[in-house]
Amino acid sequence: MENRVYNFNAGPAALPVSVLKEVREDLLSYKGEGLSVMEMSHRSKTFDSIIKEAEQLTRELFALPQNYRVIYMQGGASLQFAAVPLNLLGEGQSADYINTGSWSTKAIQEVEKLGKQYTVIASSEDKNFSYIPGNFQITDNAGYLHITSNNTIFGTQWPQFPESAGVPLVCDMSSDIGCRPLDISKFGLIYAGAQKNMGPSGLTIVIIREDLMAGSPANIPTLISYKIIGGKESLYNTPPTFGIYINKLILQWLKNMGGLEKMEKINREKAALIYDILDTSDFYRGTVEKESRSMMNVTFRLPAEDLEKKFVEKAIENGMIGLKGHRSVGGIRASIYNAVSLDAVRTLTDFMQEFERSNG
Amino acid sequence: MENRVYNFNAGPAALPVSVLKEVREDLLSYKGEGLSVMEMSHRSKTFDSIIKEAEQLTRELFALPQNYRVIYMQGGASLQFAAVPLNLLGEGQSADYINTGSWSTKAIQEVEKLGKQYTVIASSEDKNFSYIPGNFQITDNAGYLHITSNNTIFGTQWPQFPESAGVPLVCDMSSDIGCRPLDISKFGLIYAGAQKNMGPSGLTIVIIREDLMAGSPANIPTLISYKIIGGKESLYNTPPTFGIYINKLILQWLKNMGGLEKMEKINREKAALIYDILDTSDFYRGTVEKESRSMMNVTFRLPAEDLEKKFVEKAIENGMIGLKGHRSVGGIRASIYNAVSLDAVRTLTDFMQEFERSNG
Repeated sequence: MENRVYNFNAGPAALPVSVLKEVREDLLSYKGEGLSVMEMSHRSKTFDSIIKEAEQLTRELFALPQNYRVIYMQGGASLQFAAVPLNLLGEGQSADYINTGSWSTKAIQEVEKLGKQYTVIASSEDKNFSYIPGNFQITDNAGYLHITSNNTIFGTQWPQFPESAGVPLVCDMSSDIGCRPLDISKFGLIYAGAQKNMGPSGLTIVIIREDLMAGSPANIPTLISYKIIGGKESLYNTPPTFGIYINKLILQWLKNMGGLEKMEKINREKAALIYDILDTSDFYRGTVEKESRSMMNVTFRLPAEDLEKKFVEKAIENGMIGLKGHRSVGGIRASIYNAVSLDAVRTLTDFMQEFERSNG
Repeated sequence: MENRVYNFNAGPAALPVSVLKEVREDLLSYKGEGLSVMEMSHRSKTFDSIIKEAEQLTRELFALPQNYRVIYMQGGASLQFAAVPLNLLGEGQSADYINTGSWSTKAIQEVEKLGKQYTVIASSEDKNFSYIPGNFQITDNAGYLHITSNNTIFGTQWPQFPESAGVPLVCDMSSDIGCRPLDISKFGLIYAGAQKNMGPSGLTIVIIREDLMAGSPANIPTLISYKIIGGKESLYNTPPTFGIYINKLILQWLKNMGGLEKMEKINREKAALIYDILDTSDFYRGTVEKESRSMMNVTFRLPAEDLEKKFVEKAIENGMIGLKGHRSVGGIRASIYNAVSLDAVRTLTDFMQEFERSNG
């Protein structure tokens, strides 16, 4: 087998090896049909069964109630930043946002630029986004409340999702969708760029409550209309077929792994291995408040920047990539999404201990 | 090797076998780096070299002047239907459209729905889109002239591109980009969903004159702003990295084949093989005017619908798929994009002659 690295990239990120092997196996002839999934009509029977199976697996794994729909879109979370207010904000309504980091900030900037009314009802910017805010008040005419479930750059994650007082809760779940079970009925809309836990980049997964889908106004670009794209079962135009195929394989892998309860257990075990080192070491220092720590992106600092640089270099020499913190915050970040194995994390924590011994 | 079918799908469509083999070879470890292209950061050195090489090959093959830019976007031509008027139409300007079929019609419907001013200055709807209109007059305050270079459903193609009297010519080239050399200086903007000649679905290629890119207004969704996405070298957010990688491999294949002049020669030879049968047979009947015939999608009828059904079935038995005409027009359609070999077309024409002998 190919010599694979331990991949701690923040996204696009590691995919399950078994998924990649299946993709490779079928690349020139999917199930003996004589063509690649990439070469199939999106209206063929074979692709239809792929997209239906992806949707069915999503329904099953996330325990979607009947009144929720799955829509496959394009453009990543960044296009959803515009799609959400353009679809959901009715006449005279304003949007509530909670700002927990760079991606929330971008979502807010997009509403601002589109000229829609909004209020930032809570923010953790005062402490460099090192925590998830606890107190906030929904505004009176709020059309929705928007949150970011996991903050890849700052390493925080909502431990429980907030109550939204009857207002639809909209959640950018790009970097932790599928890391744990959800009570979907709490949400009006969930969106996620696939490139962390759900597939390759270029695919966006939207889970939406049916009554919200029906409200899309007619005068917005067709490709961001939940009503139209959802109404056409994501086949209004040609969807990113190969991405949907890989999403399906990942969902099958998730199911075979034991589903989201089991995945959460593994993710907590993986994260604890690293956080335990941060908590017991004088050398490594976590950057976020304990109760806001992310299971997906563990951020920490070393005593000096030159040591951080050396840490990243030595890690690469030892077959571990993607550990450099985001350029806007520095430090170290280990992204340990679903497809990053316990074995990969143990290799990292062994390395961390050895590095501390040699450099502490 | 896998038993491959002859793939005449209208899109997503056939890809070069050599490209698929290279993708398969590197699927678990790109060039020995230990991870798939799908698992790489879009800001890594390796992916940076992939996207730069894709752009460089586009510049080279299409002989792009210095003042043209290549932008990688998402959402297919359908999102460009909105992006074009939202980016290019200045205050008080109106857009001119020439309607040559289903895709032009959708582009026009999108301008209408967005509440922008426009004029359909020519249309071939009077004869069921069986020809490319010759006469039209650009309106006085036109911001651009929009055309569809090739009409997949009706089987027509602009033989030469029109003069646009100084107004930017905007062209949806989704289904024939790369089938022939272009004088790019005639165009203000070209866009193309990749899934016919340029890659898998989910990737949109935009070639734009720099001065037009600069004019995008600030209050449109960021993901469709040519100014922002182009200004960030297509890396404002995570692009469809795997699609760009495959696009790069296809461009390399095109270059190895001898470039666009050579590709046009092969495409004309392929198309002539089928059109010669239509012209000399009483059994097969072409559906479009000779001077408007497409090199990419050859549409024709048989004497009766049940014979057409039998033709499609027998073709499948003989390893040829995708020949059924679009559901909106019926009949037969052979899509013979760049990656459909001369050998595949000869197999089809042999079959056509044999089928006529047995059923004529």
